[in-house]
This record gives sequence, C-alpha cells and structure tokens, in this order.
Amino acid sequence: MHTQLEQVTHIDNVRLGEDEKSVVIIDQTQLPNRTVYLTLRTAEEMYDAIKLLRVRGAPAIGICAAYSIYALARQWGLADYPAFAERFHERKEYLNSSRPTAVNLSWALARMESVVSAGAGKPVAEVLDLLGAECRAIHEEDIAMCRAISEYGLSLIKDGDGVLTHCNAGPLATSRYGTALGPLFLGRERGMNFRVFSDETRPLLQGARLTSYELQRAGIDVTLICDNMASIVMKNGWVQACFVGCDRVAANGDAANKIGTSGVAILARHYGIPFYVLGPTSTIDLSCPDGDHIPIELREPDEIREMWYAEPVALRSVKCYNPAFDVTDHTLISGIVTEKGICRAPYTESLAALFDGKK
Amino acid sequence: MHTQLEQVTHIDNVRLGEDEKSVVIIDQTQLPNRTVYLTLRTAEEMYDAIKLLRVRGAPAIGICAAYSIYALARQWGLADYPAFAERFHERKEYLNSSRPTAVNLSWALARMESVVSAGAGKPVAEVLDLLGAECRAIHEEDIAMCRAISEYGLSLIKDGDGVLTHCNAGPLATSRYGTALGPLFLGRERGMNFRVFSDETRPLLQGARLTSYELQRAGIDVTLICDNMASIVMKNGWVQACFVGCDRVAANGDAANKIGTSGVAILARHYGIPFYVLGPTSTIDLSCPDGDHIPIELREPDEIREMWYAEPVALRSVKCYNPAFDVTDHTLISGIVTEKGICRAPYTESLAALFDGKK
Repeated sequence: MHTQLEQVTHIDNVRLGEDEKSVVIIDQTQLPNRTVYLTLRTAEEMYDAIKLLRVRGAPAIGICAAYSIYALARQWGLADYPAFAERFHERKEYLNSSRPTAVNLSWALARMESVVSAGAGKPVAEVLDLLGAECRAIHEEDIAMCRAISEYGLSLIKDGDGVLTHCNAGPLATSRYGTALGPLFLGRERGMNFRVFSDETRPLLQGARLTSYELQRAGIDVTLICDNMASIVMKNGWVQACFVGCDRVAANGDAANKIGTSGVAILARHYGIPFYVLGPTSTIDLSCPDGDHIPIELREPDEIREMWYAEPVALRSVKCYNPAFDVTDHTLISGIVTEKGICRAPYTESLAALFDGKK
Repeated sequence: MHTQLEQVTHIDNVRLGEDEKSVVIIDQTQLPNRTVYLTLRTAEEMYDAIKLLRVRGAPAIGICAAYSIYALARQWGLADYPAFAERFHERKEYLNSSRPTAVNLSWALARMESVVSAGAGKPVAEVLDLLGAECRAIHEEDIAMCRAISEYGLSLIKDGDGVLTHCNAGPLATSRYGTALGPLFLGRERGMNFRVFSDETRPLLQGARLTSYELQRAGIDVTLICDNMASIVMKNGWVQACFVGCDRVAANGDAANKIGTSGVAILARHYGIPFYVLGPTSTIDLSCPDGDHIPIELREPDEIREMWYAEPVALRSVKCYNPAFDVTDHTLISGIVTEKGICRAPYTESLAALFDGKK
C-alpha cells in the first residue's frame, strides 16, 4: 500500500534484477521522451551506465554501484575467499573510477567492501548473502533519509513560495522523494502550493528533461527556464528560496554540485534569497577539508558543441571547457539540510557534530 | 584596400541590394554551419528577418531597418508627397514593432522618417535620394563608431588578459569590428593575445554559433562555455574583464542586453572583476529614466523546449519563461564604453554629458 506521496514520486529508477546477477535501471538519458529500462550484466555496462549518466544523481549512483558490485559477485561462482575478496576489490576500484566527484559512489562501494572484509573466514556464500542485505539496506536507508530531508526542508518554506532549483535532485536522482525536490512533493501532498523554477541545466539538461518532468507529473506548478534566466526570475521577486542537491560536501561546508550551482548561490546572495543545500549525510566527506580538495570531473567538449542537437551549434574545432561540477563556497550557503537536521554556519562544527552523535 | 583588421572582421552581414529596392542579409540563424544570404523584398520579409533573428544585434538591426524602409520606399512609385509620407509612416511603424527592446531599431527608423519630414515640399524623387544617403550614413557612422569603441575598449585590457563575453556583439551584430568584441580584434591586429571565454548564450546560442565562430576565424584564442560555467571560470582566475554589448541604456546607466547579462555582472562583482558595457551612443536612450522603463521582449517557449534539438528536451506541456533580455543595474557596471569615450558613475551625469557635447 503506497501513500499518495509514494505514488506521485515513485519512479523505479534503480533495482536489483530478479536473478540478483543484474541491475535494472531506467535510462535517464532517454527521458522525458521515452521510458526505457536497461538490464546491466557486465561491469563494463555498469561503468558506462554511470559514466554516461544513464543513471545519475549522487545517491542513485551510490545505490546503483552497491547493487552492481553485488550482482557481479553473484556471477563469479568463486568459493575461495581470498580469490573472491581480490576480485571484489578489483571490480570495486573499476566501478569507483567511473565518476570522480560524487562521494556517494565511493561511500557505497566502501561500505560493501567492508562487508567482505568483515566476512573473512566465513563461507563466500554467506558473505554473498550479507552483501545482498547490505545493498538493500543502502537503498532502504536512502528512502528513509530522503523522507527525513523532505520534512526538514519543508520547514524552510511556506505555502505559496517560489523555489528555484538547479539540475535534478528528485526521485530519479535518489531512491524516492528526492533531496532538493523532496520538500516540494511532501508539501504538495499536504495541500501546499509552490511555484517552482527549474534551471534547464546545461549541457546535459537534467532540469529540462528530469526536474520539470518529475514536478509536472506530480501536479506541482513548474516553470522551465534557461540557466541564465535565474537572475531575472530572482529580480522579479518570484523566488523565496533556492533548493539544490549536492555531490560532495567538504568538512567546512563547501559543497560540490552540478556545474552552475555556485552561480545560483551568488545570485541568491545578491538578491537576498536563502540558498539551501539538501543531501544525505553520506554526501558529507569529513576527510575532505574544503572545496579545493574536491576533484572536479571534466567532460567531453561535444556535450557543449553537438550533443542533443540536430546539427552542431559551433565549429567542431572550437575549444570548450566543460566541468561537470562546481563548488559553492560555504559562506554562500544558508543551511545544509540532512536527514539528521539542518546544519548552519559554522559548518566545520555543525557538520562534524552530525557524525559525533551530538545532533 | 582593406586593412588587416578589416579583412579578419569583414562579414557582409547587411547591405542594400543593387536595385536599391531590396536588402541582402546573411542569415545568422544558419551560422556556423552554412553561409546563406537572403534577399528581403517585402515589408513582411524584413519584419520576419528581424523578428526571427536572421539579422540580430542592436546596431545591425538599426542598419537593416534603415535600408529596409528605404528599399520599400523605392518600390512604391508614389510621386505624391502626402501619400508617400503616410505610407512611409505606416511601414516604419510596422517594422518598428518587430522587436521591442533594442532602441537602435526605433532610433534608425526615426532618423529616416525625419528625412521625410524635412523633405516636405520637395519632389518625392529628391526625398528618396536623401533617404538613400541617410541609410548609407547610418551604416558608415556605425563602422566609425565601432572602430572608436574598439580603441577605447582596448585601453581597458592588457596583453594576455582573459575576457569573458556574453551573447554576440561582434561584426555580425554591428557593421564591422563589433562593440564588445571590437577591442579583441583591434588588439589582435596589434599583436596582443587574449584568452576569450564565450558564453554559449541560451536559448538562441549566439555565443556558440556566432561569437566563437567570429573569434576563431580571426585567430583569437576562444573557449566556449555554457552560461552556467561563467562562475567557475571567474573563480579559476581566468577572467580579467567582462565585455558585453547593449540593446538599450537608460539615462541612469541601467543597461538592457541579452538575457543572462545581469547574472554575469553579479558574478563579476562577486569575484572582483570589472564589467564593461560597450555600445554606440545610439543605444543610449535618455528618454528612458531607468531599467524599469525598458520593455523586455518575451519569446516563445519552444525556443527553450525544442529549438535546435533533434527531439524535444522537455515535455511539450511544460511551462517556460523566456525573456530575451534582462537589465543590468548601473551599480554593477564598471564603465560604459561609447564612441565618444568611457562613461563612469555617476552615469546620470556622464551619459547626459555625451549628448551635451561636453564630452
């Protein structure tokens, strides 16, 4: 029995195949025109699915990677623990190299490998069962975390507010509800109305293709804008809060998220609008002191010059700079919303407290 | 005999047809993939060419409109002055309604009509000759103004600087050299090297299609970025100045330009980078007290959802907000560069002085 909220937010974006030797994802690069499910069986297919953004969104990448390494391990038929652990480590490193910025990927894979390490001495069949439980737990925990983030986020806005979001941090990017979009779905279920502005988010257009799609199918008032229209929308007085997701939050609160997020934060500061980052604690990387230590993925020039288009829009010889993420300075962030509560500056203290059990 | 500068900047974007009853333009919507010239003969073709951005850029629109109303007047075969003046006014109003924001359109058309008014009592054939001289003068003056703007603009940057620009204010948008890009061409001719970042400028991609094309063919180092990458490029320390064009400057210095310009200005202020607006004095509208009085053109949603793409990138039912321009507050502008010199704050005084002959 699904609640109304679960009905409108449910998108079966990542799941384990019935044989537990494959992973089934919705191909996010085909949305909103086609709903296509892909069955991933080989490590290369899993790597490419993440690399090519068929599955994307920091939490969803973590869940997909956990299911993937488990599905691969089920295929090997290895009964010898040392050989199993070695193969596991090698494949885990391979999957982990698919994308560098989102910490959830390495977080989920490390969590899976710790099950293997703790299982030394046990029969491999038992370790496999423990791995199956672990990846399911990662998924279930994410659903619960998104729900909690949604509740905390909803406390930051009121009925009738305008909210601007960048990229996609909704159900497709997570497990359900979403992070940045979660409060909007939850508020909608409670009869609240918001006016959402969705940045289209070049070059991969996650805002156009995914965010406006998710919100519209949930009956939420959404207006699609080009990224460069955020300034005039804020100046018009239409935005009371900015909600964005995150791919990695450093110990000082600097937050890496989809390219362009830092620009939204600077505009919000200029216009006096609060800017919130929403994400599970698995996105917080206390081992990373600040944003300068977050690796920023550089992607192919053709994503800017050619991808999506009927014909190229620039000379093929024109140089492009195509960073997938940028870092928003912690001084521009009004609050970081996690499943354990809302952290405020000074973030070095408030984020650390999340892991001390003080919060 | 063309100078080297003229050779690299020469694009025959707008000219009078040989019969003087038509206007020939390069179709800017086909660049950079195809160089297509269009001959405009009817008022409707001229209106559509401006409306659909086949010819665009505030100065180029003014030149095209002046040639257009003259070419139409040559077609009528009217010898009766009152009938001629009435038809002229009616067609001028029609062309003037093609786009609302750039003041150069109405400025050039008003200048043409003043020739008609001053010609009351003269034979229509003589008025036609005067009109032909006037539209050619508007074009020639624009070339001279762009050259002067280029000189003043070049004084603001030094060899090796990084310059970020938004939209296209180069030769295609003007008559030659350009405004915002003029200093870069002029500096290049003098052996200087710049590193230019060209915002792609959604939704119509003038930066990708036109700016990166114009700069690359002139041998200037250009890197194409998505609009939302301006923040990280500035944060990286790669930008020493921002140069943009303008479509209408109000008496207090508020400047309307392509959508997204105000965002670039806010980012530049945040990162401590000077932000300059470059344009001829014909773009300054002293009758307009401030940016709130500049009409902002709203364009079709499909420019965001569908145009250019092999297939739509958002649900066709998704609402879009698509303003073609925004206004950059005068407090964010480091200087307004005209053919008469560089105006600095307070703009209410420095801009007025341009027209008093004090500058």
